[in-house]
Amino acid sequence: MNNSSDVTIAVDVMGADNGTVAFIAGIVQAMKRASCAAHQVKLVGDRDQIQSAISKQKADKWLCDVEIVHADQEISMTDKPMFALKNKKNSSMFRAIELVKDGQADGMLSCGNTGCLMAGGTLKLRTMPGIDRPALCTMIPSPNHQFALIDVGANPSSTAINLVHNAILGAHYYTTVMGVKYPRVGLLSIGTEEGKGSDLTCEAHRLLKLCQGDINYLGPIEGFQLFEENIDVVVCDGFVGNILLKSIESMAKTVKHYIKRQIMKNPLRILGAILAQGAFRDIKRQLNPDRFSGAPFLGLNGVVIKSHGSSTADGISSALELAIKSAHASKDGALSSLIERINITINQAQTE
Amino acid sequence: MNNSSDVTIAVDVMGADNGTVAFIAGIVQAMKRASCAAHQVKLVGDRDQIQSAISKQKADKWLCDVEIVHADQEISMTDKPMFALKNKKNSSMFRAIELVKDGQADGMLSCGNTGCLMAGGTLKLRTMPGIDRPALCTMIPSPNHQFALIDVGANPSSTAINLVHNAILGAHYYTTVMGVKYPRVGLLSIGTEEGKGSDLTCEAHRLLKLCQGDINYLGPIEGFQLFEENIDVVVCDGFVGNILLKSIESMAKTVKHYIKRQIMKNPLRILGAILAQGAFRDIKRQLNPDRFSGAPFLGLNGVVIKSHGSSTADGISSALELAIKSAHASKDGALSSLIERINITINQAQTE
Repeated sequence: MNNSSDVTIAVDVMGADNGTVAFIAGIVQAMKRASCAAHQVKLVGDRDQIQSAISKQKADKWLCDVEIVHADQEISMTDKPMFALKNKKNSSMFRAIELVKDGQADGMLSCGNTGCLMAGGTLKLRTMPGIDRPALCTMIPSPNHQFALIDVGANPSSTAINLVHNAILGAHYYTTVMGVKYPRVGLLSIGTEEGKGSDLTCEAHRLLKLCQGDINYLGPIEGFQLFEENIDVVVCDGFVGNILLKSIESMAKTVKHYIKRQIMKNPLRILGAILAQGAFRDIKRQLNPDRFSGAPFLGLNGVVIKSHGSSTADGISSALELAIKSAHASKDGALSSLIERINITINQAQTE
Repeated sequence: MNNSSDVTIAVDVMGADNGTVAFIAGIVQAMKRASCAAHQVKLVGDRDQIQSAISKQKADKWLCDVEIVHADQEISMTDKPMFALKNKKNSSMFRAIELVKDGQADGMLSCGNTGCLMAGGTLKLRTMPGIDRPALCTMIPSPNHQFALIDVGANPSSTAINLVHNAILGAHYYTTVMGVKYPRVGLLSIGTEEGKGSDLTCEAHRLLKLCQGDINYLGPIEGFQLFEENIDVVVCDGFVGNILLKSIESMAKTVKHYIKRQIMKNPLRILGAILAQGAFRDIKRQLNPDRFSGAPFLGLNGVVIKSHGSSTADGISSALELAIKSAHASKDGALSSLIERINITINQAQTE
């Protein structure tokens, strides 16, 4: 890989539930992978804490030429965006965003407060030309497949045009992460026939049909189609997406613990589970949310990736890999021209 | 049980995916239970088909004094409500609703076309005084608990007052089915702090707080709280609820098949699963959707229960039991007075 394709990611190392040491462990894990090793990271946060974490991890070898950007403030999980923007200007999160803004990094990664990350990202980087509102996108693993859900909470009061933009951004992201060229896009609704759904989804459907030359739009889809493996990008507003994401995460966790509890009830069941452990291992690997732990705010002038506050080293490592892929993809201008072309199509249709 | 507490349920036996024979098997199964045996059913549909199904089931003993109400039309799953209302006046579904309207039955049960059932129920029975729109409610099983989700699709464009009514109707229903006196009610949103959520949920939250003397309203809840077993009634609009219900049903089905496929991959895993089969049996029993297979349209002047088109005999039997419980509960006037009282509270607050 030549230098021109190398990217630099600013990593806000503060605010992880498991602490800075675990966070650095995730970064080290990523840097050991061939796909990451050629790239640069800048660790943003308290210099002493970072240096001590690097020593504890015996990670000097992997992070020997890493740059530490000192930031003496930290945004807490309970800080309100307006408060943070006013009072925590030198926080690790905002410093990392500014490195992207100033061209000193090609993207940033944080597992801190989502509301502050969204506010800071939007205010400092601004939305891409032609995009009104950013959208938070996440990949959801399912057996043999995975789909992108967009938006999962950035914009709870979407317009139909916001939903069209979600479709473009989500499809571009899916291509970036999964390498699938024309991902299948569906609009999440409550019926697939013309005229079914809310006013918002009906209008978004009308507009999306105009863009079928540019997006592989399959039409409205219903909740039961999510896990059927024939949709790659599921488009919805941030209210529906947020509820849906948290509900299915919660259901997955609850059922997992429940199965475990039922199995631990007697020695025969435990023995059975040991014999069948290969199955459980395969299931865990395929459905492990850490495989896709980073969620990007799409539609900004720069790559901003949110990682779970409780991410494991595996999760942080996946999120960093994702930031690198996204930073690469952001360098080609294909997305900007697509947005411009689709906005022209929509404007023409609306003035006709 | 004396005669005054007996109820009569009109059962639309047409339109089940598994055919009339399977449907009748479910009814017979219910009639064998002590909780159902004292009550009456009227089977509504094609007389010949019903009689032949009864003979095939050797069910004469259990259905000896059953009344068959002949209806020569059947509503298909693809019929549009307007078309059905105009052209299928003598359909089994509409005849069963009319039996409720005319006081010849205390409730009705159908596993036919949901849209037609909703349209027929609303048009023929009308909404209860003080209620603008009916809501479709369903019970969702979770480990050690179950919650009611209301609305799952009857009213996709709810107002804040509709959501307050959903809370009252859902809480009353939960008490009817589960025997819990002051069920804990939560408003599904995307944040629990004041001011978070959509305009709709913020306004509904303001109104629901006024009703806390009458409803055990705990405030807004997020998706991750659904399966945490501390909420009994989850209130949302029909758009969000429909997407959520179908998504979690689909996820449950997909994961179940996936686990089975992984286990069947080799003999060691199969042996393990056989040893641990007690755990799988317990899980299946607890999370079996057939336990709560009927979903009532609440807020109508009469009991209308929708059962899954693909219901098994177990599912139909649960749905009939539910119809009987609901018909009982509808006989006391407590719900009507509660609605009246809460509407006065809300009107006063809005004119102040």
